[in-house]
Amino acid sequence: MNDLAISLDVHSTTPLYEQIYHYIKNEIQSGGLSCKERLPSSRKLSDYLQVSRTTVNMAYDQLVSEGYIESVPHRGYFVCDLEGLVHIKPSTALNIKEDLSYTSTFAYDFSPHGVDLNSFPHNAWRKLSKNLLMEENRYLFRLGDPQGEPELRATIAGYLHQARGVNASPERIVVGAGNDFLLLLLCSMFGGGMKIAMESPTYRKAYDLFHNLSNDVRIVEMDESGMRVDQLAATEAQFAYVMPSHQYPLGTVMPVKRRMQLLQWAAASAGTSASTDKAFSTGAAAFSGADREDRYIIEDDYDSEFRYRGKPIPALQGYDRNDRVIYIGTFSKSIAPSIRVSYMVLPERLMELYKSRARNISSTVSRVDQMLIAGFLNEGYYERHLNKMRAIYRSRHDALLTELKAFRKICRVSGENAGVHLLLTFTNEMTEEEAIRRAAAQGVRVYGLSSYFVGMDQAQTETYPAAQTVDEHEKRLRADGHYEQAADIGRLARQTVLLGYANLSEQEIKEACARLRKAWLI
Amino acid sequence: MNDLAISLDVHSTTPLYEQIYHYIKNEIQSGGLSCKERLPSSRKLSDYLQVSRTTVNMAYDQLVSEGYIESVPHRGYFVCDLEGLVHIKPSTALNIKEDLSYTSTFAYDFSPHGVDLNSFPHNAWRKLSKNLLMEENRYLFRLGDPQGEPELRATIAGYLHQARGVNASPERIVVGAGNDFLLLLLCSMFGGGMKIAMESPTYRKAYDLFHNLSNDVRIVEMDESGMRVDQLAATEAQFAYVMPSHQYPLGTVMPVKRRMQLLQWAAASAGTSASTDKAFSTGAAAFSGADREDRYIIEDDYDSEFRYRGKPIPALQGYDRNDRVIYIGTFSKSIAPSIRVSYMVLPERLMELYKSRARNISSTVSRVDQMLIAGFLNEGYYERHLNKMRAIYRSRHDALLTELKAFRKICRVSGENAGVHLLLTFTNEMTEEEAIRRAAAQGVRVYGLSSYFVGMDQAQTETYPAAQTVDEHEKRLRADGHYEQAADIGRLARQTVLLGYANLSEQEIKEACARLRKAWLI
Repeated sequence: MNDLAISLDVHSTTPLYEQIYHYIKNEIQSGGLSCKERLPSSRKLSDYLQVSRTTVNMAYDQLVSEGYIESVPHRGYFVCDLEGLVHIKPSTALNIKEDLSYTSTFAYDFSPHGVDLNSFPHNAWRKLSKNLLMEENRYLFRLGDPQGEPELRATIAGYLHQARGVNASPERIVVGAGNDFLLLLLCSMFGGGMKIAMESPTYRKAYDLFHNLSNDVRIVEMDESGMRVDQLAATEAQFAYVMPSHQYPLGTVMPVKRRMQLLQWAAASAGTSASTDKAFSTGAAAFSGADREDRYIIEDDYDSEFRYRGKPIPALQGYDRNDRVIYIGTFSKSIAPSIRVSYMVLPERLMELYKSRARNISSTVSRVDQMLIAGFLNEGYYERHLNKMRAIYRSRHDALLTELKAFRKICRVSGENAGVHLLLTFTNEMTEEEAIRRAAAQGVRVYGLSSYFVGMDQAQTETYPAAQTVDEHEKRLRADGHYEQAADIGRLARQTVLLGYANLSEQEIKEACARLRKAWLI
Repeated sequence: MNDLAISLDVHSTTPLYEQIYHYIKNEIQSGGLSCKERLPSSRKLSDYLQVSRTTVNMAYDQLVSEGYIESVPHRGYFVCDLEGLVHIKPSTALNIKEDLSYTSTFAYDFSPHGVDLNSFPHNAWRKLSKNLLMEENRYLFRLGDPQGEPELRATIAGYLHQARGVNASPERIVVGAGNDFLLLLLCSMFGGGMKIAMESPTYRKAYDLFHNLSNDVRIVEMDESGMRVDQLAATEAQFAYVMPSHQYPLGTVMPVKRRMQLLQWAAASAGTSASTDKAFSTGAAAFSGADREDRYIIEDDYDSEFRYRGKPIPALQGYDRNDRVIYIGTFSKSIAPSIRVSYMVLPERLMELYKSRARNISSTVSRVDQMLIAGFLNEGYYERHLNKMRAIYRSRHDALLTELKAFRKICRVSGENAGVHLLLTFTNEMTEEEAIRRAAAQGVRVYGLSSYFVGMDQAQTETYPAAQTVDEHEKRLRADGHYEQAADIGRLARQTVLLGYANLSEQEIKEACARLRKAWLI
């Protein structure tokens, strides 16, 4: 018993069993008790320490359950062989270095990701939230449908049909925490190895996400109508990721004709091309509902709500008669960026695949938030909010266009018909870097377009000639005699900045543009 | 002008330009205006219709932007060639067929996913929520840090250190909407093609998710201490997914010795084995911070909070001196299932990889919810709630164990030391199906263990002999003379049911067990 010189403190707040546990554990860790050594029986130790046997047994149980000692029937307790046991290190200091990208040192920030939150209907939101958190709604804290709350899906279906011409039955809607998550879910359904055609420049997060998940992303050139369908067909891609309502970041609105061509591309089976590649790399057995040769359009309708000329163009999905469009939309842009609620409308033919491969992933949106959004739409708040925001954004849009007239000799404006940003392409010698630097020197932040170009770090030129760097693209256009197009591509890639106006008042826009005149017009 | 017999209704709520737009669009769709046909100039049409030219121009602009007509400089407007334009179909009926799996026809449901919500602190939650939605917190509606709110991460770091012995600096914590999402994020970091060792039975969603994303999942056998590290090494896996605190669904608590062995496995480089396989299938260039041969343990600590013997065992991560554990935990189990807030603590060596490949994915949890959880922890509600739940679950646990004594002749209880479910393995001839069926006939729902076995539908036997069906596993154990182990495996796979007790009162447990006696003891 000399080995266990435990001195118990009966006045301590630490229970006696825990004191015994700690003492023996420390002895084992420090080598005071060695491997295979036998411990006193609980009866002996309880006699010795003058505590109950239950107390000793609790300590021993804990040590057994943590694997420090083991109980050998009819023989007693023995120290285990621990092979390099280590102690718990104390946690490092809890300092958080603020990421600099989240702070701004600019007087005026033309962020293309801005959203005006001064008009956010706080009172309505708080009222809806308060009502939902009433005791009788306790069920909202149980796990909900992985596809999303039926009420919210019905509401979204109605809204999408009314506002976007989307054919969406609630059964085919999947609610998720952001577009990025929904794209992850799609990858999970198709199991990686998807051949996805994208534009360049494009929504960079989608590109990175597809690329990181080992999908085969093929870059297809754009013209003034959007993705070139002739090139798309040549890529042998099975998926085309497009933003027909408002291409991000170029702001191109895809005309109906191009939409029809895209739908025709999708309606044809990939099997009709020369391709004999395996479309999905694994889990082929799961594809009972979906033909592995089927083509799909992923329509990202991320900010179709804001449009300044005429009324919104219906979504591509609404024109689809062949059940080939995967439609994705979000409330993050139209309500508030931190509202992480997006939705996806799947084609009927993909529902079986979704159920077998993705429906087991728990919903990423809390039920309270889902019902909040449903209430926000159903009680008319959303419509009022959208109308208000449209008017606000339109005034800012108009104010910015007015101010930009001063720059017409040195640049060209594009992408101004929808969304909450536009593009300035310099027609003088000003490069993107220079424009950003000079604006920054005046306290104004503008954003370069070049970072939205994708696919240039990949050796995709081997697999498909269209997936090339801007340099090569220009070179080829020039070789084919398309000098103006080549110059356009070059200017987009090197001489274009984005100006987002959602988060600047008309007065601020005026002031910021005055500074930009100093920056750029000297 | 005869082609355009537009009759405008000046009293209509539909704007005039929209009436013109609709008329021309319908004419084009119905073939009344044919492809390449020239439209009247805006001046002529405005004269004819007695409307302003702006009105006509607006209608034409809309038609141009939607691609129905095109403007040819100096020549006018022409109808486009639409190639199979179709109309928008009306939405299908908004009926939602309730998924039967979400409704219950049982008087008593021993769901292993149950959580008691009667004790949910509604008032505290509502109060916190109300305070957060105050106007001055408007910033919470802006896009937050993709890694999670710094305040919440600091809170989680402190909690994890105190309660779980986890070394977590806020900089290495990633907040996400559920464990499933965090696993998706990991896949996105490593780019698919991960070689992941898992147990069987295991957390099926994790298995499906890894498998669906084209990772190479290798099944490793378990013994009474958990995953067999000797077999793990032989798989050449680079990742081991384990639940040391409480294996789901078996309830095994991994002893310290096995934890140390696992950590030793992880500390060794995969490169020291005979493997020369490419560890990551794509994006190797991105792996600047992480050695491609490094091994990692994914520790899912999903319900470490509920433990009935002694105090909680510290997390495996706390013992790790080699920066090789990816720790994942959640508030869904300890607060409420619909609270979609989980967290991941990444090893320092993976931070660069995270930043380059996953940090651009927007947060999946709303900032309000994040700050709500932070407040819930910081103001002491969480601790009180956990203590309350522990006491409630312990009473239910004890009540169930007492009732189960009646069954001791026909079954064996396991997994009863932690969590909120236990396992009954029949030692008579009763199969899982029969047990479930007979219980159902008495209005009691119990759950089979067999559905948690994974990897049996894969032809993995070619790559690694441990990844085999239960049948083969049994056969091999018998061939090696391990008859009792073989019988154990067989009984687990075919004669075991799960009984979750979180959502049943002590009285209900008594009543349900009385019914089970009728079901099983005749």
